[in-house]
Amino acid sequence: MYVILVYDFDESRVNRALQTCRKYLTWVQRSVFEGEISEGKFYALKEELRRIMRGKDSVIIYLLETGRYLKREVLGEEGQPFNVL
Amino acid sequence: MYVILVYDFDESRVNRALQTCRKYLTWVQRSVFEGEISEGKFYALKEELRRIMRGKDSVIIYLLETGRYLKREVLGEEGQPFNVL
Repeated sequence: MYVILVYDFDESRVNRALQTCRKYLTWVQRSVFEGEISEGKFYALKEELRRIMRGKDSVIIYLLETGRYLKREVLGEEGQPFNVL
Repeated sequence: MYVILVYDFDESRVNRALQTCRKYLTWVQRSVFEGEISEGKFYALKEELRRIMRGKDSVIIYLLETGRYLKREVLGEEGQPFNVL
């Protein structure tokens, strides 16, 4: 499956969240990650993030069966190398 | 069409970006918006955002034909009222 993950972490935890997500997905903007992921790895990613999360930290994950029909438009500067296009 | 919009604006411009996006879409997390939108309104939204954008400001918009098959998982606290579910 293809996922788009967006997080909102407290400054004190955001680096750990970033390092965790980068193990599984492509970093496309400051708090946005994308990529193809297996059910097993998806479960592991969520468990790792849950262990980091506290208080108002929040993660939204959009699940698509495939990224094939996903269209994107980017305005302005891409936050990070955008090698998922 | 259904869109997911994620932005990364400099602190000095983020409020204007927020007010602009809230006119067209539902605010679901600090820098994330979603919703059904017409081609005309989508064009207008992008134009308004372009007028605000400077330097490293960045917007990624994911376009889906419909939000009907879009699945979401939310971990932790939802940043804002989440009335798109």
